[in-house]
Amino acid sequence: MTAPTDHTAAKAGHTLISVDAMGGDEGPAAVVAGCSLSAKANPDIAFVLHGDEAQLAPLVAKRRELEGRCEIRHAADVVRMEDKPSQVVRTGKDTSMWSAIEAVRTGEAAVAVSCGNTGALMALSMIRLKKLPGVNRPAIAVLYPSSNPQGFNVMLDVGADVRADADDLLRFALMGTSYARNGMDIARPRVGLLNVGTEEHKGRAELKEAYDLIRDQRESAGFEFVGFVEGGDISGDAADVIVTDGFTGNVAIKTGEGTANMIGNGLREAFKYSPLSRLASLLAYTSLMRLRRRIDPRRVNGGVFLGLNGTVVKSHGAADATGVSAAIRLAAQLSESRFNDKLAARVAATLTTEETPS
Amino acid sequence: MTAPTDHTAAKAGHTLISVDAMGGDEGPAAVVAGCSLSAKANPDIAFVLHGDEAQLAPLVAKRRELEGRCEIRHAADVVRMEDKPSQVVRTGKDTSMWSAIEAVRTGEAAVAVSCGNTGALMALSMIRLKKLPGVNRPAIAVLYPSSNPQGFNVMLDVGADVRADADDLLRFALMGTSYARNGMDIARPRVGLLNVGTEEHKGRAELKEAYDLIRDQRESAGFEFVGFVEGGDISGDAADVIVTDGFTGNVAIKTGEGTANMIGNGLREAFKYSPLSRLASLLAYTSLMRLRRRIDPRRVNGGVFLGLNGTVVKSHGAADATGVSAAIRLAAQLSESRFNDKLAARVAATLTTEETPS
Repeated sequence: MTAPTDHTAAKAGHTLISVDAMGGDEGPAAVVAGCSLSAKANPDIAFVLHGDEAQLAPLVAKRRELEGRCEIRHAADVVRMEDKPSQVVRTGKDTSMWSAIEAVRTGEAAVAVSCGNTGALMALSMIRLKKLPGVNRPAIAVLYPSSNPQGFNVMLDVGADVRADADDLLRFALMGTSYARNGMDIARPRVGLLNVGTEEHKGRAELKEAYDLIRDQRESAGFEFVGFVEGGDISGDAADVIVTDGFTGNVAIKTGEGTANMIGNGLREAFKYSPLSRLASLLAYTSLMRLRRRIDPRRVNGGVFLGLNGTVVKSHGAADATGVSAAIRLAAQLSESRFNDKLAARVAATLTTEETPS
Repeated sequence: MTAPTDHTAAKAGHTLISVDAMGGDEGPAAVVAGCSLSAKANPDIAFVLHGDEAQLAPLVAKRRELEGRCEIRHAADVVRMEDKPSQVVRTGKDTSMWSAIEAVRTGEAAVAVSCGNTGALMALSMIRLKKLPGVNRPAIAVLYPSSNPQGFNVMLDVGADVRADADDLLRFALMGTSYARNGMDIARPRVGLLNVGTEEHKGRAELKEAYDLIRDQRESAGFEFVGFVEGGDISGDAADVIVTDGFTGNVAIKTGEGTANMIGNGLREAFKYSPLSRLASLLAYTSLMRLRRRIDPRRVNGGVFLGLNGTVVKSHGAADATGVSAAIRLAAQLSESRFNDKLAARVAATLTTEETPS
């Protein structure tokens, strides 16, 4: 079923995205629908779709816009949400996730997209793509809704690792600004280092050290450094890139998401409360939907693994076609801007003579 | 101006609250107005009000409900928001904050309330009240709006210290459950330990150790242990007490507050967008105000310093009369339930023979 004509077509002048079609909560139908949306919006992209050919072929055949732009690469096995990363690394060779990463490792595609198990995706990406020279800890970056003009801040790390020393935090700043430049078109990103206060004397020792390291690189690496920022600045407009360790970052974004959900549920109840409030919700419907879209995580769906030889975009496990499509759009932009080459060059340029690439 | 009759009246059968009347953003008028609200709502409380007598006396004289229930104790100096804690500890003897804490140190009042500089308040409280036996790191606990029946979770530490080891986290669990029992009337609080995943193998080493320590105390200390929780559970209903270190906790609550503010601003804009949406906001006004009250930080205004010989309630610096009154209500409940004695007994009971009280 792997049509050779498709394969050729996909390679001819197209930006090729490697997509893990299995493993999301919504199944391959949502992934194919997301590819279809992206294909309509962007005539320059094509796909290698990894997964069960028997399931995927009929789904792809139904989408005319995917014709000649979507190769199916069969993978018999699937990484499930409950699988342990260590196990997937040992025995996951036949999975669609492995196959999707493999297409990046061989250089066929620059970026892979998956809705699957985050831990397994990170572990496989690390083992198969390997770290860039100068990067000790790769990071997961997300876009967090903010009051900035662009509507979002880049935040990293949000959970690739539970620790980060001062040197890692400097690398996160470099990788995050590279991502902001190439993924969000911010020419000179403003970097903030997350802390419990904005005074220079506050916080943990490694943060004070990281403060100096990041400040000293701001000129040569072409970013602004706004210094320490606080939790409230993640959704604010003081910085474009928020740098923190993966433990703090993970807790922070989940706290923010949880709080937003709690308010959303409260609003729904408030609007159901009386006939008047039900009428109100109808009248305000358009405005409320506009707000919802602005802070909808599906629109910025995609944690990005940074610091590897190749880029991997992690889409929400529960992503529907809109979510998958947003992740693919991000993947295409990063691929077209040759993001990872620029990131690698940026990190390499800051290595001092004392340091050995690791 | 310190009327002896007032002083006597305040002591006769009343719960005496020591209040730092200066140092909040809104000035002493808001603090006195808050005392006045509390005095109307609760006939059993009385106040020692610390600050500039010349400013305070006319404010108190205007409030009939404070007559005979409010002693003014003159303090010439004020701790400002920009003062460094170390400096206040050395030279702050004449400040209203010092005086307010002193009334707790001498046993005159069980609880002090201040809207002032958090760092200075914590430093002064530590130095003057000293740590309880068995407590290495005191903690600041806050109530965070949640989908629990009580509407809030207790979370600690949110910034007394940037670090906490496994043993500290166990103490936080004990102090937090004591607070939930006495401040929130939850007979058997459910404790969750904040982590980046709920699986037992995840997270930092000290968290796995703390997991075992807390689990082993749950029977003897009369709480449930729900294990690891994530950032999303801070506003959820999985636990009543969320235990974490002061760095993570501080970032988390500020991230949540920031996100809530961003959504609130977005809602206001949405409702201003068109004539229809403006009409909608009028129709839904009552319901929206109900929601706002539910998640209003002023209602649960009051971080509480736990682990000292005496309780100190930190009210928001920007607290108005409603906010101050909420902090005073909390202070009164903690005082009436003899909370700090119970907390001290609870922590002391879990000291093993290997440990030396510090």
